[in-house]
Amino acid sequence: AGLHGRKLQEPWLMKNLAFINGKFVGAKSGKTFEVDNPASGKIIGEVPAMDASDTKEAIAAAHAAFATWKNTTAKERSKLLRRWFTLLEEHKEDLAIILTAEAGKPLAESRGEVAYGSSFLEFFAEEATRIHGEVLQPALPNREMLLIRQPVGVAGLITPWNFPNAMITRKAGAALAAGCTCVVKPAEDTPFSALALAALADKAGIPPGVFNVITSLKSDAAAVGNLLCTSPLVAAISFTVSWPPSPSLVSLMAAISVNGGATVLLGGAPHTAGALFYQPTLLTDVTPDMPCVATEIFGPVVAISKFETEEEALRIANDCKSGLAGYFISQDVSQVWRVARQLEVGMVGINEGLISAAEAAFGGIKESGLGREGSSHGIDDYTEIKYLCIGNTHL
Amino acid sequence: AGLHGRKLQEPWLMKNLAFINGKFVGAKSGKTFEVDNPASGKIIGEVPAMDASDTKEAIAAAHAAFATWKNTTAKERSKLLRRWFTLLEEHKEDLAIILTAEAGKPLAESRGEVAYGSSFLEFFAEEATRIHGEVLQPALPNREMLLIRQPVGVAGLITPWNFPNAMITRKAGAALAAGCTCVVKPAEDTPFSALALAALADKAGIPPGVFNVITSLKSDAAAVGNLLCTSPLVAAISFTVSWPPSPSLVSLMAAISVNGGATVLLGGAPHTAGALFYQPTLLTDVTPDMPCVATEIFGPVVAISKFETEEEALRIANDCKSGLAGYFISQDVSQVWRVARQLEVGMVGINEGLISAAEAAFGGIKESGLGREGSSHGIDDYTEIKYLCIGNTHL
Amino acid sequence: AGLHGRKLQEPWLMKNLAFINGKFVGAKSGKTFEVDNPASGKIIGEVPAMDASDTKEAIAAAHAAFATWKNTTAKERSKLLRRWFTLLEEHKEDLAIILTAEAGKPLAESRGEVAYGSSFLEFFAEEATRIHGEVLQPALPNREMLLIRQPVGVAGLITPWNFPNAMITRKAGAALAAGCTCVVKPAEDTPFSALALAALADKAGIPPGVFNVITSLKSDAAAVGNLLCTSPLVAAISFTVSWPPSPSLVSLMAAISVNGGATVLLGGAPHTAGALFYQPTLLTDVTPDMPCVATEIFGPVVAISKFETEEEALRIANDCKSGLAGYFISQDVSQVWRVARQLEVGMVGINEGLISAAEAAFGGIKESGLGREGSSHGIDDYTEIKYLCIGNTHL
Amino acid sequence: AGLHGRKLQEPWLMKNLAFINGKFVGAKSGKTFEVDNPASGKIIGEVPAMDASDTKEAIAAAHAAFATWKNTTAKERSKLLRRWFTLLEEHKEDLAIILTAEAGKPLAESRGEVAYGSSFLEFFAEEATRIHGEVLQPALPNREMLLIRQPVGVAGLITPWNFPNAMITRKAGAALAAGCTCVVKPAEDTPFSALALAALADKAGIPPGVFNVITSLKSDAAAVGNLLCTSPLVAAISFTVSWPPSPSLVSLMAAISVNGGATVLLGGAPHTAGALFYQPTLLTDVTPDMPCVATEIFGPVVAISKFETEEEALRIANDCKSGLAGYFISQDVSQVWRVARQLEVGMVGINEGLISAAEAAFGGIKESGLGREGSSHGIDDYTEIKYLCIGNTHL
Repeated sequence: AGLHGRKLQEPWLMKNLAFINGKFVGAKSGKTFEVDNPASGKIIGEVPAMDASDTKEAIAAAHAAFATWKNTTAKERSKLLRRWFTLLEEHKEDLAIILTAEAGKPLAESRGEVAYGSSFLEFFAEEATRIHGEVLQPALPNREMLLIRQPVGVAGLITPWNFPNAMITRKAGAALAAGCTCVVKPAEDTPFSALALAALADKAGIPPGVFNVITSLKSDAAAVGNLLCTSPLVAAISFTVSWPPSPSLVSLMAAISVNGGATVLLGGAPHTAGALFYQPTLLTDVTPDMPCVATEIFGPVVAISKFETEEEALRIANDCKSGLAGYFISQDVSQVWRVARQLEVGMVGINEGLISAAEAAFGGIKESGLGREGSSHGIDDYTEIKYLCIGNTHL
Repeated sequence: AGLHGRKLQEPWLMKNLAFINGKFVGAKSGKTFEVDNPASGKIIGEVPAMDASDTKEAIAAAHAAFATWKNTTAKERSKLLRRWFTLLEEHKEDLAIILTAEAGKPLAESRGEVAYGSSFLEFFAEEATRIHGEVLQPALPNREMLLIRQPVGVAGLITPWNFPNAMITRKAGAALAAGCTCVVKPAEDTPFSALALAALADKAGIPPGVFNVITSLKSDAAAVGNLLCTSPLVAAISFTVSWPPSPSLVSLMAAISVNGGATVLLGGAPHTAGALFYQPTLLTDVTPDMPCVATEIFGPVVAISKFETEEEALRIANDCKSGLAGYFISQDVSQVWRVARQLEVGMVGINEGLISAAEAAFGGIKESGLGREGSSHGIDDYTEIKYLCIGNTHL
Repeated sequence: AGLHGRKLQEPWLMKNLAFINGKFVGAKSGKTFEVDNPASGKIIGEVPAMDASDTKEAIAAAHAAFATWKNTTAKERSKLLRRWFTLLEEHKEDLAIILTAEAGKPLAESRGEVAYGSSFLEFFAEEATRIHGEVLQPALPNREMLLIRQPVGVAGLITPWNFPNAMITRKAGAALAAGCTCVVKPAEDTPFSALALAALADKAGIPPGVFNVITSLKSDAAAVGNLLCTSPLVAAISFTVSWPPSPSLVSLMAAISVNGGATVLLGGAPHTAGALFYQPTLLTDVTPDMPCVATEIFGPVVAISKFETEEEALRIANDCKSGLAGYFISQDVSQVWRVARQLEVGMVGINEGLISAAEAAFGGIKESGLGREGSSHGIDDYTEIKYLCIGNTHL
Repeated sequence: AGLHGRKLQEPWLMKNLAFINGKFVGAKSGKTFEVDNPASGKIIGEVPAMDASDTKEAIAAAHAAFATWKNTTAKERSKLLRRWFTLLEEHKEDLAIILTAEAGKPLAESRGEVAYGSSFLEFFAEEATRIHGEVLQPALPNREMLLIRQPVGVAGLITPWNFPNAMITRKAGAALAAGCTCVVKPAEDTPFSALALAALADKAGIPPGVFNVITSLKSDAAAVGNLLCTSPLVAAISFTVSWPPSPSLVSLMAAISVNGGATVLLGGAPHTAGALFYQPTLLTDVTPDMPCVATEIFGPVVAISKFETEEEALRIANDCKSGLAGYFISQDVSQVWRVARQLEVGMVGINEGLISAAEAAFGGIKESGLGREGSSHGIDDYTEIKYLCIGNTHL
């Protein structure tokens, strides 16, 4: 039910329990909630409705596991991450089916996300053994100065509905590589991909308490999130949030824009597939105040503006509170560097739309967030630099 | 008055106006406040009592200056920072006299701080030209992937009373090297060192608006700080706070400890120099709950505990909410690595007490703060990583 | 025969042909030579006796393959290297049996070498995707300055008899990761490990011409080596040589030392196993001019000297033309740093004898060689830095 | 005489003695040789004609100085290099006059070279304190693995006539920063710039024996060079050679090309200024076999070839045994990357002709040399990586 008639090769990947300290468990309260397929509205399963008390237990498990996990060698962690990666590869079709069921994205896109998600585990498996420190040139004689990098501790990882698989591996891969343990809280809408990842982490031999997943309702999100942010046992928080999926809101914002004078080039109307869908839409003649320009509409609506000069294009693009990614087409090498340097975003695609990669640093500026994920920099926030000064070496 | 009878070679270094957009100015309100010498209680001068509206103007100046400063070459910024450094070296005795006057520390220590403070300007002058990006190995053919680093924008820098010179150069040196501009808010107690730095920055040719100093009362600190933290024109905040200097509080905490059973080895009483002083004090027979152990007493009181084993020593040292620096004496190489790795602090001195250096990464873990200052890492938080993906290179 | 009665799981790993351009081939001359087991003297097989004309063909194949191999993505090369690594892991027992047969070392040591050898393929598979360039801070406005790294071309790899497996993977792993192709010339004594590696490289899908192995007699070594060193088609040479194994020479040098006054603590005589063996031997009362001290005896003879002070120990240790590795025992942290810095060697083992690892930089100073193998630095000599300066960006 | 009527502000910068162990000295043999101005043929002075025995003394001095220089802190070396840089800046006009006198290049170009030359001293003064090692992630538990970098020892530096100032600072700046000492042998034609650099090094406080200059005739070059290359006291050699300046040879090669069918667009004849000059010359209709194409003509003769396609242009450019620098003009971003990656040279100027900078890596591929100078990589060849493995840390 809810899997669009598709069958999993390994039905056990579809878990209906959360994962704490190496065990699949229910909520202490016994409560559960149902998860539907947003493309069909059909219920695909139910999972524990966990609250702050369950979260506390997960944090405690992660904290206890940290005491030994932090002292494993990087090589051991690398091997476990690679084994986890290999399991994702082996079960990629099942993972894509689960992902499509709960997130509603086409199966082809889910397959793409699973490949992208597993690439982080491979990348960070390799990065684990390369978290090097530095032997500095001492400023004074008779001493040695070193910088080493150590894991920060327990990381709370809060992930969104739109990339239920890859957002978890991008964070957890880095955290585990660094020697941290983690508590993952996936979006209410998409807990099953997270739980499938937990099942495979367990199978890969990642020790109990190192990777935990708690499932919870939006109504408990404030309490759970607050605990993750304030618990003295949690050393770092990484969260990625997305606007809630809302076809009706997308419809409203498009309509307001059109009423305000925008011209519809394509689409611009509810989808025949029903209220859960909206047509791919292209709008022109837009003005900066229209919602299709002024806000992150988070739906299949693209607003097109004309410009005369490079300066004008940069002004339009930079007149914006968010700054995740920007894209432009140009063959002129001077313009490429000029515009790339001046665009106020964290990522720039030049003559290319598909720019995400585990090797690259993903992240935005302005209101689009702090920090970078992926690339060697993706590990930075899970480590502390410790400075050692050894005096009186008498050389 | 208040300079202990010492005379400045260059009296103009003692400014009684704040510094905004390259000009020494008063508060819009016309208000001022007096600053005393905490060792003598004598007034040494007065400075503008600025509020949120003055702060707004300073932020606007810094934001306007950023538009051109960010496009200077690293080499130009390097030269200006070096010139600033050279001026600090030339005026080091005056800067030390001013520092002693407002902070109350012995002149020898002030000289040490000025040397330490100027070393950051030299270090970051050199670091500016080394803020390199990366040319990555592209994950797919037919494309180039690069990571570049760009300045974040305006930085708000809030600094404490106990290091009125070096805390500013450690932050502003990194910020300016990266291509950021800044608004500095020194502690109410110690504005004169900050203003002397501004006078020398100006003389070095650092352009108007790049380095601004606003002076304000503690009673305005909330409003001023709030504006720095929430203004959309400010991209980064760096603040270091210290407990307020309070001989009476130190006295009280020592007394409670002694009442609780601690033994006084040395000192333990008010100083003959008066109520503004407290005797250097050594306490033994202390317990974990005594204020001299459980809190950052921030006065000349040292509590000594005995231990039997390395494990016990680590337990005592790590049973603490703060984690700035830890020190230990050992000649055993295995123990040195073991204890250095297990101490929960950001900096470890081994057989050495004076570990601070511009080349080293200064900072703590747990409640002792986030981020690192000094070293090449000291620039990280003033830069954003931007990922460029150039597609269709057709090779 | 010659395998000590052990049977290979996969007999095809024991090749009696060289490997050029993806094919197992004989010498053009049709000549072959026999290889014996140095522990038993028994013939274990024969391989082509190649000369300069065969070498020329191998170089040409490597050069032709370079034209496409250099343009593969690092990720593709990484995957092929990992597949090769996996095949080594799968066939590790067979590889150890072959290694013991031709090199005469105990099977346990051969197993260790095969694990060590395969670790380079894994390490460099991971390193391939991390051969990053730099985006420099331009010294002048209006330009971009970048450094990229590109493969040098064909590498000639000459390897010794004492590590017939690992010396090849340590060089070829780095070369292939960088995008170079290579021609390997193993020692006359130990061609079979090299050929087994070729068989597995082929099975892993490494394209024809990328990895070539030519087998030749010592009498042809000068001509073959000369061609590898002077051919304009070969861009880099890496060679590791070892003294020829000679029990009689070891015996002679020990005897001269004993005649000169050295005391035998252990061994010191021919082995009952026959002329191909020598007893493990400890000598004391040695002087600097004795052959057991003054030369690399390259046999199981250890000379022990007493010393009074650290200075004296350093003087004895550094009074030597070679400088590969040095080892010492000390728990004193100051002494550890002092002696480690002053020992004139490329590698220092402190309280540890087994220091080799793919992650570490292997190599010596003085007459012990140039360059480093293993670690990220192991790739340096297979790449050229190319500086790109893009002018007139008009920003 | 020979200074074109220009007068030095500081005549003592024009030395007629070599510089060994902190002293200006003559040759042991008492011999000297005269140096002329190649633009006028007039004698400008004479310097010692040193041979192998003088060289031996200089090497011994450098070797003795190394024992203490290697143990200075990087900060001390940095300060001395900066002081040397500052002195070059102060005396830049005198240095340019000396350079023009002995090398014959226009004064404007000499000023440019002196600025370029001094920039290496500044750059490496800053780089000295950044020669960091690495703290690796240990491959096995219970150990620490570190890589440190140490100076190699005495460096022999052999420099050419066409950049008598900058070629020395580019090498010696790096060598001294690393902690090496050096013996410089400038070209016979241009010893005075080298000796002026020595005078300023001495004034800067660089200790005796750290920087030595020996002057010698071409007829002694083989013996001197051989000693520098084979002395066990010399650890590294860096040499840059240039074709000897020969207007008659340039004339001959141009004439042969024209006879072979090349068309003269500009120049193509001896200069009215006399036999020591040749006209700036542009040739078209050239063929690959003409000397103006096939050889490094090392004179003001440029050969221009037409091409139809990018592939053809690359084939022409790469059909060449040398590979120092290549330049091309293109605004097409894809072509820029494609051609830059495929040009077989060490340096590529894209829309820019003046690409040299201390921050960049200078050097070629193919027959144009090994290694890189300038940039952080310019220090690599003056350092050895030493691997430290500390076992039994029992964590």
